[in-house]
Amino acid sequence: MTNQANTPDPAAVADEDAQDEKSPSPGSHATVSTHLYPKGGLDILSRDEVARLRDASASGMHELLKRCALAVLTTGSTSDDPRAAAEIFNRFDIEVTQQDRGLRIDLHNAPAQAFVDGEIIRGVAELVYAVVRDLAYAATELGADTRRDLNTTAGLTDSVFDILRNARSLVPLDPNLIVCWGGHSISRDEYIYTKQVGYELGLRGLDICTGCGPGAMKGPMKGATIAHAKQRRQRPRYIGLTEPGIIAAESPNPIVNQLVILPDIEKRLEAFVRMAHGIIVFPGGAGTAEEILYLLGILTREENADLSFPLVFTGPKDSAAYFEQIDQFIRATLGEDATKHYRIIVDDPVAVAKYMKSGVRKVRESRIQSKDSFFFNWSLDIPLDLQKPFAPTHANMASLDLHYGRKPSDLAADLRRAFSGIVAGNVKEEGLREVEMHGPFRIHGDPQMMDALDALLRSFVAQRRMKISGEYTPCYEVVR
Amino acid sequence: MTNQANTPDPAAVADEDAQDEKSPSPGSHATVSTHLYPKGGLDILSRDEVARLRDASASGMHELLKRCALAVLTTGSTSDDPRAAAEIFNRFDIEVTQQDRGLRIDLHNAPAQAFVDGEIIRGVAELVYAVVRDLAYAATELGADTRRDLNTTAGLTDSVFDILRNARSLVPLDPNLIVCWGGHSISRDEYIYTKQVGYELGLRGLDICTGCGPGAMKGPMKGATIAHAKQRRQRPRYIGLTEPGIIAAESPNPIVNQLVILPDIEKRLEAFVRMAHGIIVFPGGAGTAEEILYLLGILTREENADLSFPLVFTGPKDSAAYFEQIDQFIRATLGEDATKHYRIIVDDPVAVAKYMKSGVRKVRESRIQSKDSFFFNWSLDIPLDLQKPFAPTHANMASLDLHYGRKPSDLAADLRRAFSGIVAGNVKEEGLREVEMHGPFRIHGDPQMMDALDALLRSFVAQRRMKISGEYTPCYEVVR
Amino acid sequence: MTNQANTPDPAAVADEDAQDEKSPSPGSHATVSTHLYPKGGLDILSRDEVARLRDASASGMHELLKRCALAVLTTGSTSDDPRAAAEIFNRFDIEVTQQDRGLRIDLHNAPAQAFVDGEIIRGVAELVYAVVRDLAYAATELGADTRRDLNTTAGLTDSVFDILRNARSLVPLDPNLIVCWGGHSISRDEYIYTKQVGYELGLRGLDICTGCGPGAMKGPMKGATIAHAKQRRQRPRYIGLTEPGIIAAESPNPIVNQLVILPDIEKRLEAFVRMAHGIIVFPGGAGTAEEILYLLGILTREENADLSFPLVFTGPKDSAAYFEQIDQFIRATLGEDATKHYRIIVDDPVAVAKYMKSGVRKVRESRIQSKDSFFFNWSLDIPLDLQKPFAPTHANMASLDLHYGRKPSDLAADLRRAFSGIVAGNVKEEGLREVEMHGPFRIHGDPQMMDALDALLRSFVAQRRMKISGEYTPCYEVVR
Amino acid sequence: MTNQANTPDPAAVADEDAQDEKSPSPGSHATVSTHLYPKGGLDILSRDEVARLRDASASGMHELLKRCALAVLTTGSTSDDPRAAAEIFNRFDIEVTQQDRGLRIDLHNAPAQAFVDGEIIRGVAELVYAVVRDLAYAATELGADTRRDLNTTAGLTDSVFDILRNARSLVPLDPNLIVCWGGHSISRDEYIYTKQVGYELGLRGLDICTGCGPGAMKGPMKGATIAHAKQRRQRPRYIGLTEPGIIAAESPNPIVNQLVILPDIEKRLEAFVRMAHGIIVFPGGAGTAEEILYLLGILTREENADLSFPLVFTGPKDSAAYFEQIDQFIRATLGEDATKHYRIIVDDPVAVAKYMKSGVRKVRESRIQSKDSFFFNWSLDIPLDLQKPFAPTHANMASLDLHYGRKPSDLAADLRRAFSGIVAGNVKEEGLREVEMHGPFRIHGDPQMMDALDALLRSFVAQRRMKISGEYTPCYEVVR
Repeated sequence: MTNQANTPDPAAVADEDAQDEKSPSPGSHATVSTHLYPKGGLDILSRDEVARLRDASASGMHELLKRCALAVLTTGSTSDDPRAAAEIFNRFDIEVTQQDRGLRIDLHNAPAQAFVDGEIIRGVAELVYAVVRDLAYAATELGADTRRDLNTTAGLTDSVFDILRNARSLVPLDPNLIVCWGGHSISRDEYIYTKQVGYELGLRGLDICTGCGPGAMKGPMKGATIAHAKQRRQRPRYIGLTEPGIIAAESPNPIVNQLVILPDIEKRLEAFVRMAHGIIVFPGGAGTAEEILYLLGILTREENADLSFPLVFTGPKDSAAYFEQIDQFIRATLGEDATKHYRIIVDDPVAVAKYMKSGVRKVRESRIQSKDSFFFNWSLDIPLDLQKPFAPTHANMASLDLHYGRKPSDLAADLRRAFSGIVAGNVKEEGLREVEMHGPFRIHGDPQMMDALDALLRSFVAQRRMKISGEYTPCYEVVR
Repeated sequence: MTNQANTPDPAAVADEDAQDEKSPSPGSHATVSTHLYPKGGLDILSRDEVARLRDASASGMHELLKRCALAVLTTGSTSDDPRAAAEIFNRFDIEVTQQDRGLRIDLHNAPAQAFVDGEIIRGVAELVYAVVRDLAYAATELGADTRRDLNTTAGLTDSVFDILRNARSLVPLDPNLIVCWGGHSISRDEYIYTKQVGYELGLRGLDICTGCGPGAMKGPMKGATIAHAKQRRQRPRYIGLTEPGIIAAESPNPIVNQLVILPDIEKRLEAFVRMAHGIIVFPGGAGTAEEILYLLGILTREENADLSFPLVFTGPKDSAAYFEQIDQFIRATLGEDATKHYRIIVDDPVAVAKYMKSGVRKVRESRIQSKDSFFFNWSLDIPLDLQKPFAPTHANMASLDLHYGRKPSDLAADLRRAFSGIVAGNVKEEGLREVEMHGPFRIHGDPQMMDALDALLRSFVAQRRMKISGEYTPCYEVVR
Repeated sequence: MTNQANTPDPAAVADEDAQDEKSPSPGSHATVSTHLYPKGGLDILSRDEVARLRDASASGMHELLKRCALAVLTTGSTSDDPRAAAEIFNRFDIEVTQQDRGLRIDLHNAPAQAFVDGEIIRGVAELVYAVVRDLAYAATELGADTRRDLNTTAGLTDSVFDILRNARSLVPLDPNLIVCWGGHSISRDEYIYTKQVGYELGLRGLDICTGCGPGAMKGPMKGATIAHAKQRRQRPRYIGLTEPGIIAAESPNPIVNQLVILPDIEKRLEAFVRMAHGIIVFPGGAGTAEEILYLLGILTREENADLSFPLVFTGPKDSAAYFEQIDQFIRATLGEDATKHYRIIVDDPVAVAKYMKSGVRKVRESRIQSKDSFFFNWSLDIPLDLQKPFAPTHANMASLDLHYGRKPSDLAADLRRAFSGIVAGNVKEEGLREVEMHGPFRIHGDPQMMDALDALLRSFVAQRRMKISGEYTPCYEVVR
Repeated sequence: MTNQANTPDPAAVADEDAQDEKSPSPGSHATVSTHLYPKGGLDILSRDEVARLRDASASGMHELLKRCALAVLTTGSTSDDPRAAAEIFNRFDIEVTQQDRGLRIDLHNAPAQAFVDGEIIRGVAELVYAVVRDLAYAATELGADTRRDLNTTAGLTDSVFDILRNARSLVPLDPNLIVCWGGHSISRDEYIYTKQVGYELGLRGLDICTGCGPGAMKGPMKGATIAHAKQRRQRPRYIGLTEPGIIAAESPNPIVNQLVILPDIEKRLEAFVRMAHGIIVFPGGAGTAEEILYLLGILTREENADLSFPLVFTGPKDSAAYFEQIDQFIRATLGEDATKHYRIIVDDPVAVAKYMKSGVRKVRESRIQSKDSFFFNWSLDIPLDLQKPFAPTHANMASLDLHYGRKPSDLAADLRRAFSGIVAGNVKEEGLREVEMHGPFRIHGDPQMMDALDALLRSFVAQRRMKISGEYTPCYEVVR
């Protein structure tokens, strides 16, 4: 289906991509211990807030904090094994301590690659602050004693809003934010293509938001960086939205200048679609399929019929087959009507960028008309069903309702969960453990739908889109 | 006691001071109706927050909001009668309405003096936003369902901190903020002197914070403005701290570029002393005496023995007698030891500024040593007694414990309350009503102490320091 | 003619105006010696340029440099006697020395008022740099070996352009620069009125350019400063254009943040009219009359018939008579037609500002249409006659051609010279010397015209518009 | 000597490097015609200057202007044939026209690759302005009627200074500018290595200046861009210094944000060494050898014995042999002593960056001590011999004095000329023509020195360092 040349050799791609940057001395797992005084919000805290933050980081949140901090300290790393860095830097620790003056973050045995001549790289330090800020916010504001009702659509949307605002990611600028989705494990041709698209977007003054790992999440930012420099663009935004479960596998690429860690995949997806003024999907694996189905679960709702929401699926020539399969799968499951929400463009970065540019213009007009904000798409109707966290257990996976006759938006929601479980089984610690203990997830449904699903998943495997390195052992089993 | 030339003719002073600015045509009470879309924090609100704000402003908070908004819209006005503007602009109204996009503020029949060719003056608009922001914050964050414990010192201090931070008034800059206290009704010579002191402070790179009305609250800012311009100082700060009860009587002067409305006089006083890196007291009336006693109630505490806190009482030559009286009153009530906390400097703006500059330098060093923040003096120990709101009722005034033998800091707290009640009886709506209904407040205590108090208050009256216009009818009676 | 209350008491006005600022201890003529390393253009010089500058300042230019530097170091001084400061600070000296790194300016025995705690006030330092920069530029670029032809209109206009550009005063902003002319010696009411007009201009986003002395040159800037602060205007411009002959008598007021020293009065006048997007004339004396006639000499030319050039004469109510006299004088000399180029507005700052605002809008449109620059009015036709320096000698004054029948623009040019000579005889060193040696200038012409001139001059004397302090002894004699 | 893998395949390298950016549709030589209004200096010109500029560009300078403009409009192009672009875009033209308002640049049939959706890329527009600015400056300020004496060292140095200042490239910042030299035609490994070095320099806050073509001139900038982004460096500088003769062959790479076109190679070399705070030399061909000898011709002078001037030769492991050859050649010609001025570091980007960082620190100290400016190394003694343009004619090449016994600095000057001639014969229009007409240049000298020279040049050929594409036919002949 794809020729040999296009078969991804992810290790090679990652290597080539990283070669511009620091070549760590072979075999050196050197570490540095130091402390930081965070800025940008964390510097103006009350004594009480500092105390709560210190307590939270010392107790339950500590492991999570350590894991996420390590991920950003190994930024630019090419491995997607969430446990690799943790093993190498097993003496790493992070401590948040109180000073009347504010916060102090102690790093013990941190990876030396985050430092230059003993001083932490400023961009990396900002990522560390973002980790502390967002985990603390989730722990202290969204925790047990929150005033929020997290069982309602409004309450959950507000919590996404609050996290983004607290991270200072909501700013009243003209619409120009393009969300790029796609796999972290893609072929060299595909990677270059994502850079070209990012370059064309950047030339047209558009900013980039991705999931902030390697592959399709890094390429558009890299391309846009060059274009923004050429256009002398001041304060370009490279926003990375991630979650604790995935950050270790997809450590933020070095270009991200705004990192937000949402508490779970559902809030992360909601953050994507409410911040986006347009979305581009590049080839990917199960995670990308999850994102597509999540978005179609929203756009196929009647409540959203009048919304402007530019959505493009695109890849280089050799990847055309990939989107044909996705397209077929959507037709075979959600029906013909669902296909009107997206446009497939093959091998034409300029056309993609022009389509987005004109789409964003329409979004701007419609926001003004509906008096909606530019920075957060309040009008988008997202059902509670898509907001509630889905736990990738065997029981939950087995009870998905994958049958014809359901409303497309409802079916899309369950298909989204199926892919979400598979991603967890592939790269998230929690899912990996489940599968190690109980064997592959079992997915039931209408035979025809199961065939479509199986075909799609098999092609992902064949195209090596499931994992960066090593042989892929499926974490699921499709039951007809 | 003071020569004739120095007898304040407040109306004349105010007039001279206002003449540089728009001279509204006599008899013109023209109005403008318009709407504003606020910026700077109020532009990034969740739908829920906007709704709560709208509800709050539509219900209980409405009258308060209207009153405060009117005060800032008549900014620069020379009257200290809180009901004057309300009568002239009796058809004025303000409405906070919701838009998906954010907040919209509708002004109906607003005073035309706040507008230029139909457009609101940008600085005035910012003051209106500040009013909405702070009243809304108090209503929604410090209201009934707050998580805070407002019966503890820590809880109250945190609430002051939160209000100031929410107003973006806490910024991690080098210490340079001088709080200036003093009367709104002062003589021409005194007014010019406050400008000269402000000028010398400004030449030395110091910023100004006052209670933001006329007189001694305006002069230092005006002088500093010229000096900052000469020194090409970028982003100088002219911070005004006020409270709903006083804002109508002391409408913010036009130079204030950061206005914060604290919920009550006690939080306002705490905000002053925690933000200040030094305090200058100019001549004033009962309000100034209240401020002095509040501060001495803190500085005389053993817990604060090691703190650096530069404090100067100063005025022009002809006002020397004023501070002699204050000094005698302090000796006669709190005792000799209390006088070591302040320094009296007569008629020497340069000496005042130099003293402050060197004091601020010491504050900086001591904050670094104690690892306290530059922008909020956490180390200062303020007892609950001074934090709790004091209601100026006849019963409360009558039960003040004004006797010798008490700890100076405790006695200072009750003396502070006595003056607080008198200020309320003079210019606050609530106090005016009480006195109209029940006659003057009656203040009891040790005869010697009462003599000292009476002498001081009488001299304020003789010097016309109690009220800007009209004959002064005492709102109190000292009972021996 | 004017009531007593309006009779200027310049000393009083100046004193009141200066009282906000540093009150130098009586009798103190303290001095400071120090050195400065200039910035803003003077910091990037070639070795050769530094050497030429040092040489120029060490030789012929030295006295001039000393005089001008002393003027800006006594900025804000209230005397208009050019020799007063020079006598008090007779040990003052300035030296420009070379360093490979750039320029160093040594100040010896400089007036202490320019310093705060031993450090020079930044704004004053900038004025000193401006003096060195402009005198050096004139000496090295407009001196003997210049490539320019200073006997042609184009050559002279280019030299004005070059001086202004070298001073970084030409910037491509939207038209908003209002030139304000008027006397340095005006009544208190008039001074307050100039502040009110400046305030209204500032509220409307207009910047101010004046001759940068006291009186009508300071008031508009002071008023605009407050208004710009209220409108939160970033980077307001307060441009002062002066010349070596007048700077000592009219030392730059402290608000000026861009000072340019043109080599002579003619280039200064050309700079005014080419930079202005509108001109306001306040009451003044002979200097103001000179400015009015210079401008009418240009606007009455056929070549300039199509230009937009908003011009207003304005003053408070009690000064109405002043502009009636000017108006009559213009009718009596240049004829009825000349009056269509200006508009007289009495006692209405708002009307003046609105007229200017709308006039500037028209200027903007017409510049765009004619593709002329916003920052320099190239289209304005100025005849060589008005550009060539006029030496105020007895011979030159006696040979002015003041007769009816000449073209209005030619006659205006000679009338301009007459007033120029009188100003020199009043306050410029060169002129003072001439008159001391040879007695008053004698001015001839048509009797009727001489009557008009005499009436005007007498009224200036009666209104004390000729000099700030002391009795006025006329430096001229009108010969019929 | 170098293994096969390291044999440069320049076309491949260039292609890979360009792939991130716009992929022009195959075969499309589309063009755009438009006009620009330049900013940044060219927007504030006198009418006379505009006229002179227009005249200059319409007459003699026109061809040069057209050629240079085309070079920057094809920025990022991968060809080094100066005549390729000119042939493809043979209908391209550029016209500078006058408007009262300033300058207007008309582009006719310009390469479409410089535009996005019909609008010129802002960075490219800035390069066009730089071309017009610098050629015009050279024509009008350094032309026939200049006041400068271009036959003296001081006069020539001043002209270099003036060109750089006019281009606003001299700014009083802390020393941090590293000049990188090296070939435009290098191997893939070498190219990656230059990026890594640039990355390490950028991490340490150092800015980059190169000759602004592809290869070793682009790599360091690209690496630094990523590092500067990571360190959140504001306003990084990527300075390109070029000359009319080479710009067409080495069109500025897209990262350059400050381009200066010096009139000839000698002034370009002087600009490099006077602006540099340190120099790194990567592998290259004859041009790189020219640069090395130029610099050694200066550093070996007694007058410069006390100067700090960090100089490193570096390349990846496989290129170690290259610098061994250079080193041997230097020993064999200039002698052992000359080698103390540089340090060879193989395959260690971190060591290179650390050496530079510490070297720049010493430069800073020594400049402060000698009171020399940070932005222009006035102290460096450069003899007239190295400043005077060398015309690569057969006669001049034949008369070079390449014999032992001369002072090393003098010999270096003549060796520099030899290489300069060879570069011209390889890639400059003028030199190509000479060689086409008269056959290869003939170089005479001491046999032993000729052997060393021959060996070096042969190795360049073997390593394909002489030209990007096609077979290399030597343009010289070494005569023993």
